[in-house]
Amino acid sequence: MAHDIRIVTEAELRGAVTLDLDSVKVIEQAFGALSDGGVVMPPVMSMDLAEAHGEVDVKTAYIPGFDGFAIKVSPGFFDNPKLGLPSLNGLMILFSAKTGLVEAVFLDNGYLTDLRTAAAGAVAAQYLAPDLVHTAGVIGTGVQARLQARAAYLVRKFDRLLIWGRDADKARACAEDLSDLKCEIRVVEAPADLVKASQLVITTTPAKEPVIKAEWLHPELHITAMGSDQAGKNEIDPKALVQADLYVADRAPQAQSLGELRAALEAGLWAEDSPVELGDVIRGRARGRRNASEVTICDLTGTGVQDTAIATHVMARLTGRDVGTVIHT
Amino acid sequence: MAHDIRIVTEAELRGAVTLDLDSVKVIEQAFGALSDGGVVMPPVMSMDLAEAHGEVDVKTAYIPGFDGFAIKVSPGFFDNPKLGLPSLNGLMILFSAKTGLVEAVFLDNGYLTDLRTAAAGAVAAQYLAPDLVHTAGVIGTGVQARLQARAAYLVRKFDRLLIWGRDADKARACAEDLSDLKCEIRVVEAPADLVKASQLVITTTPAKEPVIKAEWLHPELHITAMGSDQAGKNEIDPKALVQADLYVADRAPQAQSLGELRAALEAGLWAEDSPVELGDVIRGRARGRRNASEVTICDLTGTGVQDTAIATHVMARLTGRDVGTVIHT
Repeated sequence: MAHDIRIVTEAELRGAVTLDLDSVKVIEQAFGALSDGGVVMPPVMSMDLAEAHGEVDVKTAYIPGFDGFAIKVSPGFFDNPKLGLPSLNGLMILFSAKTGLVEAVFLDNGYLTDLRTAAAGAVAAQYLAPDLVHTAGVIGTGVQARLQARAAYLVRKFDRLLIWGRDADKARACAEDLSDLKCEIRVVEAPADLVKASQLVITTTPAKEPVIKAEWLHPELHITAMGSDQAGKNEIDPKALVQADLYVADRAPQAQSLGELRAALEAGLWAEDSPVELGDVIRGRARGRRNASEVTICDLTGTGVQDTAIATHVMARLTGRDVGTVIHT
Repeated sequence: MAHDIRIVTEAELRGAVTLDLDSVKVIEQAFGALSDGGVVMPPVMSMDLAEAHGEVDVKTAYIPGFDGFAIKVSPGFFDNPKLGLPSLNGLMILFSAKTGLVEAVFLDNGYLTDLRTAAAGAVAAQYLAPDLVHTAGVIGTGVQARLQARAAYLVRKFDRLLIWGRDADKARACAEDLSDLKCEIRVVEAPADLVKASQLVITTTPAKEPVIKAEWLHPELHITAMGSDQAGKNEIDPKALVQADLYVADRAPQAQSLGELRAALEAGLWAEDSPVELGDVIRGRARGRRNASEVTICDLTGTGVQDTAIATHVMARLTGRDVGTVIHT
């Protein structure tokens, strides 16, 4: 039986879907569903192309109640900049969860991953940051530094944003790009200053050695660490995880192998069996922040449910709109 | 940097690429490369969607020397026929092996899988069947029964084709669809008759109990079993594998877990460590058939290298031709 498949480019996707409270809501629902059970999320498929200095990851997840499921392919080819090409590319394919038919191909070059990753940061802040955030701080100066600052601002209207990166020029460029946010923005000289002055901190780096020290923790602080998504990465001093009043993972097994929790486990600092998951806090199955003064940490490694959720959301946004190229099969 | 992505539908693919000696050659090269080493082929990613009576498999492989690599997504939704839809669907995505950029999306609904699976049958017959095949036999009456008969005929010009299936009407329909082959075609009443009269037999069933008994083996016989691709399937009496002069797998670890070899291992009949692989025979690293009278068996479970090979082949065929829809990104 013939059916139509919609092909949508990155430019078309950027025109159709942005980081807003709707995107945050759908990612919140995805984490909630993960807590409810019934989600099927196979381990990431990874292929190393050593000769080309490249790698490819494939993620997917089925979420009960969602009309579709996405398969995301993320190639990273690290010699591409020499050719004038971005290192990261890729696409998402949306399938009907009822028939398995292909519904759409999103040639997003990672844009939807950026969106769903930022949206998870907003969900973490919404559930775990103090209600009143006067100062927010972003560590790192890349795409996610920008998006995480905007995501945080969607759920906590801070007065001041601090930015720190190893390269001060890049930090200034990041501040410049965020100048439309209705708050004061400052580049700071040391990450300690940023953490000490903030109630909400987001780390967005590929660091392999902690950029946040445990002794910088203070009352009324929430930290979201979203940089670590591979064994070997580590943004937060492992001692901070046990020193905090609450540590929350997006997905416990992933945090144990790929996230901040890995380093804490390896250092023998983590005694509890399995950490609280963000979805459990959303659903009220686990406690979140109990009062303004607690210190909380959320560890985001990135999950297939976010991909399925954002792809389904995009499709809903596009329905009835003349966006993309329709292929009749 | 902008680049073009070609989207090609099943109908366009059927018009552009068919089962011929060129397709067989490219699959032969893929198996050869598998033997040469350097191939990266991650385990299949599988997701079960129990609520929808569906499943999805993702396969991929990198082959040194090939310009691209494919990622294949194969959904199977077994309630689809009730909706007037085919159970099997899916697509292949071709990426540059140098940059990871998406080059093409083949919305093939499994057509390219059918092609590469049939082509592997031709490669097996080419290297393992007796040089002179007077009578060939096909067990099963589905798409692969038809394609495997045609594939065998590309490499062995048999005079007579025998067909057996549990449903005689379907066997007759299969014979009818193959009537353009320049040979006599007969539907037989019992698989034993077919095996005993043939020098080349291809089994194409989803059988869970053997359809070929060991006592039917006879000199001057090659059997290709391509039906088993999951633990639980079994087309050939496990005793036949050890009774034969030579058993060859497409990929040893897959044959051990998904192919005919699994049942032989479980029955404690297989003493050797790891079977010969088809690529080793192609490259002369392992012996194939030594003389006309030997009995040989080839076990095809289906490999990611075949997907990468056929997708690369299709792309080469399409280059410079106005086939499909080009998306400018």
